[in-house]
Amino acid sequence: MGTVNVAVGQSGGPTTVINSSLYGVIQESLRHKEQIDKIYGMINGIEGFIEGKVIELNKALNEEDRELLKHTPAAYLGSCRYKLPDSMSDSIYREIFSKFKELNIEYFIYIGGNDSMDTVHKLSMYAKLTNSSVRVIGVPKTIDNDLTITDHSPGYGSAAKYVAITVRDIVMDANVYDTKSVTIIELMGRHAGWITAASVLARKYKEDNPVLIYVPEVEFDVDQFVRRVKEELKKRNNLVICVSEGIKDKNGKFICEYSSEAGTDTFGHKMLTGCGKYLENIVKNELGVKVRSVELNVNQRCKAALASLTDIEEAVEAGRYGVQACLKGETGKMIAFIREDKEEYSIRLECVECAKVCNQEKVVPREWISEDGTDITNEFVDYVLPLIQGESSPVMEKGLPKYCYLP
Amino acid sequence: MGTVNVAVGQSGGPTTVINSSLYGVIQESLRHKEQIDKIYGMINGIEGFIEGKVIELNKALNEEDRELLKHTPAAYLGSCRYKLPDSMSDSIYREIFSKFKELNIEYFIYIGGNDSMDTVHKLSMYAKLTNSSVRVIGVPKTIDNDLTITDHSPGYGSAAKYVAITVRDIVMDANVYDTKSVTIIELMGRHAGWITAASVLARKYKEDNPVLIYVPEVEFDVDQFVRRVKEELKKRNNLVICVSEGIKDKNGKFICEYSSEAGTDTFGHKMLTGCGKYLENIVKNELGVKVRSVELNVNQRCKAALASLTDIEEAVEAGRYGVQACLKGETGKMIAFIREDKEEYSIRLECVECAKVCNQEKVVPREWISEDGTDITNEFVDYVLPLIQGESSPVMEKGLPKYCYLP
Repeated sequence: MGTVNVAVGQSGGPTTVINSSLYGVIQESLRHKEQIDKIYGMINGIEGFIEGKVIELNKALNEEDRELLKHTPAAYLGSCRYKLPDSMSDSIYREIFSKFKELNIEYFIYIGGNDSMDTVHKLSMYAKLTNSSVRVIGVPKTIDNDLTITDHSPGYGSAAKYVAITVRDIVMDANVYDTKSVTIIELMGRHAGWITAASVLARKYKEDNPVLIYVPEVEFDVDQFVRRVKEELKKRNNLVICVSEGIKDKNGKFICEYSSEAGTDTFGHKMLTGCGKYLENIVKNELGVKVRSVELNVNQRCKAALASLTDIEEAVEAGRYGVQACLKGETGKMIAFIREDKEEYSIRLECVECAKVCNQEKVVPREWISEDGTDITNEFVDYVLPLIQGESSPVMEKGLPKYCYLP
Repeated sequence: MGTVNVAVGQSGGPTTVINSSLYGVIQESLRHKEQIDKIYGMINGIEGFIEGKVIELNKALNEEDRELLKHTPAAYLGSCRYKLPDSMSDSIYREIFSKFKELNIEYFIYIGGNDSMDTVHKLSMYAKLTNSSVRVIGVPKTIDNDLTITDHSPGYGSAAKYVAITVRDIVMDANVYDTKSVTIIELMGRHAGWITAASVLARKYKEDNPVLIYVPEVEFDVDQFVRRVKEELKKRNNLVICVSEGIKDKNGKFICEYSSEAGTDTFGHKMLTGCGKYLENIVKNELGVKVRSVELNVNQRCKAALASLTDIEEAVEAGRYGVQACLKGETGKMIAFIREDKEEYSIRLECVECAKVCNQEKVVPREWISEDGTDITNEFVDYVLPLIQGESSPVMEKGLPKYCYLP
């Protein structure tokens, strides 16, 4: 039996370590020269592939480039937000599989989140229906940590670490004046509070800032919020509050919607902005104190120099495992992280059905949020702390990180 | 002759390395045990000192704490924004000097920016008028880099490095989709474009993003801006633009004032917010493309883990030199950095009259900005590049930076 080719693509929002998984796919493919020949990179995911945009990664990247790639944020191959049609008789499937055939692609590894697992599922279904031998595997990636079954997803650890470091720094900054002040930090997370919850790690001691943490898992009540801010300001000069972009009131309306119009993206997600700014104005008007709101924005998913080494290494392993799974004959599966029930943190990888993962959403368990909904419990800290361990060591050149990017 | 005591305070906005200068003051004071006994820290600057808030730094900080202090962002001692009255007959001066006498403080080192140098100048004037032997020295500190005479100020190098790294990361992030998009990054700088200019370092190659850079030194014209964005979007998919918070139109009106009300701080500075957001809306309305604005906010002055080692070391040296200057009998002076006219970057320290520094503002020379006012020249790159060299190595504990803070 001759060699076959592998294709790899990246999809959905970028993360700090999505390229670490790409690195893992490439390195593992290179280890299996008897089975795998070419490694095709899809430019801009499956959408770009349909348009014929591919790159031969064996040729494009030498060893030094690949090491840079491991520490390069955002998607080296470019990304897309593209939803495959539900109907398997849509011509797009024939097109994709004829391209697979043309390029002798037998293994396709898609690095992405929820929506990308939907793509993996559909392509593997189509392969089954048409008796194609093409195997399709999903490698998880999301800063939001909302993929089910897996203990966590690559990308989340680095986002959590960035948030913890940055909130700690902002707390230090907010403490310098001896006057009453409120700082509201708005963090990413439409429906799941995982990223925002990580701000609890910023505390240096009990009662330290951020004192209040609001996640979308709990109804947000503006009046209660204002009362709580008043109370806390009696106890301390400088109050730092962390809020998820996706906090909602009892009617399920996003708080940010009260201030700004919201558009929707291809997948029907609300495009959010500005609940921090909205609450800043409320506090300013109601309490008359100095208020600042800070939005960490895309920094949460691209600050490579502050990435978690654990996250990088796990992302690499997930990529490697994706190739191994293809070689073993798996298809329609996502690589999941199973946390071993041991004293010391330990993870094993497994293949799980994409069908069980896609179009699901894992939120922060209610019991990891304090009863009044303004704090995060120690159970969450135990969960998240292992994920942010270890420092990244990007290659620096003239004082700046050196990255790998498409020619 | 017996020993005397030294007082040190921090004032104005925090920076990543203001504590490195504090570390320098402490370390140098400890080296002169025959002349210097106690090291008093003023809590919340001269304002807190007037209220009697001091801490004995010899007692409060052991060697390990001091090493942490060197890498701790924000002001360990707390800060203030307090302007001393112009009239030397104001009772506040008598109060301050009687406290100096009470605590046997003969040397006072104030780490701060423009307004703090005004304090140094006034206190040294009062000492002269009253034949007091107290010596007052200013150690420069400002992320804005707007202090005159000195080649640059501690705090700026780290802000510049943070901006360069972060803009590079955001550019990577902005490039992932194959659709037209505009990203507007708003950077600090009310009147001087030094911080924003540093975004030019983010480019990995000629023509790379950020393609457009706008600083307050040049009049901003919204119509020209929109035209330029349209032009650039014809050439590329993803356009990243950096703007100073303080860009103004031909009437001298801040662009952000068009969207938001602006308050003023104690020194009569306009408190700005939101020109990035304002331009985001304009581009959205005029061009109908996907636009995002990102405000780096206080992260520019507190991200210790990404500080410039050169900046840290120079901040320490400036603090040390401040103590040496006091011992030599200098007063009313600020420590300035003079760049040596050599092939390799080299700095020597000097004392300059505070009177010549305070209430002045150094802006980016017009010839370091391109003629059309949308780019930064290589002369600026030559100036700034040495200031961002070297990586900081904060003590990490459980994956997070360990800081030194007031008990």
